[in-house]
Amino acid sequence: MTESANHSSTIALIGAGNLATHLALALVGAGHQIVGICSRSGSSAQRLLDRLGQGGVATSQVADLPTADFYLIAAKDDAIAQVAAEWPSDKRTGILAHTSGGVPIDALHSAGAPYGVLYPLQTFSKDRAVDFQAIPCFVEGANEEIAQQLQQLAQSISQQVQFLDSERRRVLHLSAVMACNFVNHLYDLAGQQLAQHGLSPSLLQPLIKETADKIKNLSPREAQTGPAIRGDQRVLDAHRALLAQQPLTLQLYNLMSESIFQTFHP
Amino acid sequence: MTESANHSSTIALIGAGNLATHLALALVGAGHQIVGICSRSGSSAQRLLDRLGQGGVATSQVADLPTADFYLIAAKDDAIAQVAAEWPSDKRTGILAHTSGGVPIDALHSAGAPYGVLYPLQTFSKDRAVDFQAIPCFVEGANEEIAQQLQQLAQSISQQVQFLDSERRRVLHLSAVMACNFVNHLYDLAGQQLAQHGLSPSLLQPLIKETADKIKNLSPREAQTGPAIRGDQRVLDAHRALLAQQPLTLQLYNLMSESIFQTFHP
Repeated sequence: MTESANHSSTIALIGAGNLATHLALALVGAGHQIVGICSRSGSSAQRLLDRLGQGGVATSQVADLPTADFYLIAAKDDAIAQVAAEWPSDKRTGILAHTSGGVPIDALHSAGAPYGVLYPLQTFSKDRAVDFQAIPCFVEGANEEIAQQLQQLAQSISQQVQFLDSERRRVLHLSAVMACNFVNHLYDLAGQQLAQHGLSPSLLQPLIKETADKIKNLSPREAQTGPAIRGDQRVLDAHRALLAQQPLTLQLYNLMSESIFQTFHP
Repeated sequence: MTESANHSSTIALIGAGNLATHLALALVGAGHQIVGICSRSGSSAQRLLDRLGQGGVATSQVADLPTADFYLIAAKDDAIAQVAAEWPSDKRTGILAHTSGGVPIDALHSAGAPYGVLYPLQTFSKDRAVDFQAIPCFVEGANEEIAQQLQQLAQSISQQVQFLDSERRRVLHLSAVMACNFVNHLYDLAGQQLAQHGLSPSLLQPLIKETADKIKNLSPREAQTGPAIRGDQRVLDAHRALLAQQPLTLQLYNLMSESIFQTFHP
């Protein structure tokens, strides 16, 4: 994205976790300058600054952050309203934005600064590189001008940027919880069944990979297979018997099978 | 796998669907000969034989299949017992095996032939190539000798072959249902939420891919994120409100969130 060089911004980050790390790497890669990072103790902020190699201020106090064009909150959802409530009055010229799918834009209203949202739809792990350019990013601003500035910033790191209001961002977040958090929990439950019978959870990896890959070409509806579609009671009962000692997982099995069946027999 | 050339077998297939197709391609690739294929009308059997380019008999009648070293049933679960019950007496020298995760070995007992199971743990689509060598395959035989012959056959097409009795294969099948069928249904439900609000389900693809990729390096337990872990009622309630008109999906949401919470707060 060559145009990003024309719009180099100064950015301060609140948070130094997985999202903050990947965001900072992408922003620096796009030619922006991370001028400061705030983390609870300041030490993970310093480690992230060291990794970025641009200098900047590491602190545990938002008040000590340098002035910046953008202040991006990449911290836990709970922390967002508190950051806004305690936002220093000398930092009300730059745009304050959070990066959460589950928090409405209004959570930042009390900051007294121009505010908005820049939500990257992805799950981040510290040690796994991600291609930020491929991550869909969703922006919202307290007004049109803020939204456009956040759009410009987002477009410097992602090829897929769109405006999205808080109400639809909530839908997106719900979908992400289903397709990521719930899916991952099913990986966990499936692996547990194997481990309990002396089989390696890693046996599932080719299946998990292909299940995810398949829906690049087929819709999930077209890709659906398995005993639940046709309500194959013989197989369903055999599985239920295996889950007799795991009441919550058994409930999940029944409800998921019912949901699949109803999808195909509405 | 060079050793496979020393053990070229003749194989007849019952079934010409996705699994039969990928199995046939892998077997031919390993130097075996597909001497005949039986499908309901015979026409998809002929199409598959044409694709393999080795000749062979296409038929709709099991009785018309040529004699072979192995008869592999790659048909729907329901068809397996019927194939066994009607198994022709002139085909009782070769090994009859099914390829299903959900059907016990004994379903083939009535055939009067040596019988067993060769179960490849994967989901197959007609138009997607798969690397059979990477697919875990599980074999079981009515006796030790049959098991070994099936192992040898499986090892010619897969690098991951192990013996597994019907009881543990059922556990494996349950796990596969969770990690594939249920996961795919969550992709479907998540995409539906987006579509209902004018958003493209394809927005989820980078997230889905990363969620599957992550667990190559992290256990699903380590990889788990999201509002349900910490029981974040504000976010959970917001999601529940979105699902108010979808009672079954709302139940699923609650149960999945509860199962995640209990996993981390046992």
